[in-house]
Amino acid sequence: MTATTDDTADDTSPAPPFRWLAGAARERAAAGLTRVLRPRPHDEDVLDLASNDYLGLARDARVTGAAAQAARRWGAGATGSRLVTGDTLLHRALEEELADFYGTESALVFSSGYAANLAMVTALSGRGAHLVCDRLNHASLIDAARLAKASGARVSLFGHADPDSAARALDEASEGSEAERRALVSDTVFSVDGDLTDLPGLSRACRSTGAALLLDDAHGLGVVGPGGAGALTAAELRGARDTVVSVTLSKSLGAQGGAVLGPSCVVRHLVETARTFIFDTGLAPASAGAAREALRLLRTDPGLAERLRGRARALCTGLSEHGLDTSAPDGAVVSVIADSPEECTRWARRCAERGVRVGCFRPPSVPDGRPRLRLTARADLSPTDIDRAIDTVVRCRPAPPSSIPGETTPPTGL
Amino acid sequence: MTATTDDTADDTSPAPPFRWLAGAARERAAAGLTRVLRPRPHDEDVLDLASNDYLGLARDARVTGAAAQAARRWGAGATGSRLVTGDTLLHRALEEELADFYGTESALVFSSGYAANLAMVTALSGRGAHLVCDRLNHASLIDAARLAKASGARVSLFGHADPDSAARALDEASEGSEAERRALVSDTVFSVDGDLTDLPGLSRACRSTGAALLLDDAHGLGVVGPGGAGALTAAELRGARDTVVSVTLSKSLGAQGGAVLGPSCVVRHLVETARTFIFDTGLAPASAGAAREALRLLRTDPGLAERLRGRARALCTGLSEHGLDTSAPDGAVVSVIADSPEECTRWARRCAERGVRVGCFRPPSVPDGRPRLRLTARADLSPTDIDRAIDTVVRCRPAPPSSIPGETTPPTGL
Repeated sequence: MTATTDDTADDTSPAPPFRWLAGAARERAAAGLTRVLRPRPHDEDVLDLASNDYLGLARDARVTGAAAQAARRWGAGATGSRLVTGDTLLHRALEEELADFYGTESALVFSSGYAANLAMVTALSGRGAHLVCDRLNHASLIDAARLAKASGARVSLFGHADPDSAARALDEASEGSEAERRALVSDTVFSVDGDLTDLPGLSRACRSTGAALLLDDAHGLGVVGPGGAGALTAAELRGARDTVVSVTLSKSLGAQGGAVLGPSCVVRHLVETARTFIFDTGLAPASAGAAREALRLLRTDPGLAERLRGRARALCTGLSEHGLDTSAPDGAVVSVIADSPEECTRWARRCAERGVRVGCFRPPSVPDGRPRLRLTARADLSPTDIDRAIDTVVRCRPAPPSSIPGETTPPTGL
Repeated sequence: MTATTDDTADDTSPAPPFRWLAGAARERAAAGLTRVLRPRPHDEDVLDLASNDYLGLARDARVTGAAAQAARRWGAGATGSRLVTGDTLLHRALEEELADFYGTESALVFSSGYAANLAMVTALSGRGAHLVCDRLNHASLIDAARLAKASGARVSLFGHADPDSAARALDEASEGSEAERRALVSDTVFSVDGDLTDLPGLSRACRSTGAALLLDDAHGLGVVGPGGAGALTAAELRGARDTVVSVTLSKSLGAQGGAVLGPSCVVRHLVETARTFIFDTGLAPASAGAAREALRLLRTDPGLAERLRGRARALCTGLSEHGLDTSAPDGAVVSVIADSPEECTRWARRCAERGVRVGCFRPPSVPDGRPRLRLTARADLSPTDIDRAIDTVVRCRPAPPSSIPGETTPPTGL
């Protein structure tokens, strides 16, 4: 672990090209935005309200068993790009089952939801295209729009979950002489507050202008809609052929990976042109196998998603009754506004000390700049768990900083 | 699988926003650049010279067993961002072992090598930075530079593997008044031809200007250097503290994922600022467990990498002796130039019909536009396998298209 070749005399100080990092770290610390990793053991005893394992399937023995079986049968890795050696009948089966669940013609699996979003947005835009994006879109959709812009697309933003604002942006886009291709890009369920966008309104705005609708349903799959069939089914847009949707396999399905679902012509186009598909190793078989089994369990028990939403509503109601500034959950997420990043960090740490893990979201993970606790419900939470979670969050709210002089704040989480 | 809501009357034709895709597909077909997926069964009987499973570890029972065990012990997925719930002691152990193998202070694991490269380049650049990039860099490094540019960095290119050209680009970068931070970005082993860049020369160019050296050693780990310790060790740059390197876990280690290795200050900076780290679900435990076991096997048998390189040299020698235009392998890859995309496709398909899988790389997967077969050696190929591969590739070279009128070309691979 020692450097054998270096151009600096002092082994403990950063090399010249990295000396600027110390100043950047000090600036983050001064703003209360330091982040550190806190690795967990496999057998920790904690009430988890921070993960995205909404249906409690990541540790389900049927799902982990399917992961294990897929690794043994198909190998630990896909061994190459899907277009070379990384495509297997296992990937194909998963894609057919995902497409069937969403009512689309086709699906294409990626190594992550991030990669799926980069593919969906960049391959369906490019030079001459115009993207119209919700201003609170997930980071992966923002990065996708940046890459599209670098390839010659124009990008404009519309007001969060506001179809009228989106319609105006699309109208302005259609006035541009080069904007033959227009697409509206949005999350369905926004990850920080768990709020659902106005999908029927966005779809109408697209159809009135002939624009494509590109959606990220990462927090909708398994959570919203009848049987957890996602936000498009909930909005009566199931199988809409002017719509493309991405999902993740790492949230309600408890695995890893992402997928893009839509018309076959779109999926063929992604196979042939999407850089994060062509130039990435295929999803590991264990993750594909786990996602298949989780999807099977979700289809077998259509009540899972409704139980999950019930838990989220109970969390929200309980926290609100104690006077906390709480988001109303459309999906599985309940957020609680904190006064400052420092308060948010301390609040989450106190909950953790009492065995309840909640998320602590601070800039840049909160698009509006307001730090908050982020609690995620799970379908397998008991009424006792819910009561304990509410009680802990309420009791752990820190007093104003002035009343606890000298307390230092080792930061945690996001 | 039928659309329940649509604005088009004809269910078989594309919806209006996607009608342009048909023209794009026709243009690719006319250029011989159609790509289709060909999923493989788990038990196929084929001599594989197309995967990046260089050490033959993806199907090794010890590696797949470790994947299965990790899934059962840690869960099928990481359940969240590493900064929320996705960080485990398993990830930490893998990072410590990777850092130890490369002689760096720290390492940080990502869900893919693509994500690792986006993180490394964007987090270490941004406004006021200047990136100087090999013009044949991998797509993920190119996308990373595009994202950096979108955040205010300047980007310039230098001649492929040319330290003098790189030094001139760095000199020009240092003349820019805003370019306080400069970094040189390059693959170590280039994936298409398997050629090694001039790492000592690039390092000298960086040190003379105080620039950081950011390297992608995806095709170097487990392949080049003593014991497969990678290109930096081979170039006597092991542990250099002005250098950051990314690797993948999906090639010689047979799993999925990527990592960035370097000084602790750099890794801390990535944890706190890299968007593909903060906003992505952590790597699935099965992939982390598999990569750990593969790395252990590589360290236990330092001869693995040398055997692999011997197989690559034997492939190259045999193909060259038959008059094929073959790249000299620094790593595990041997490429054979084809006259056209159509010839390349037909050539690879004929090999496949005879039970030998080789890669078929065409634009945009070949930075110089020249299509070629891409053969990858594996440490576990026997002399008989090598002879069969050479014989098959030589015999399968298609006659010029004019002599086989009417033959159609279902495309395959990249």
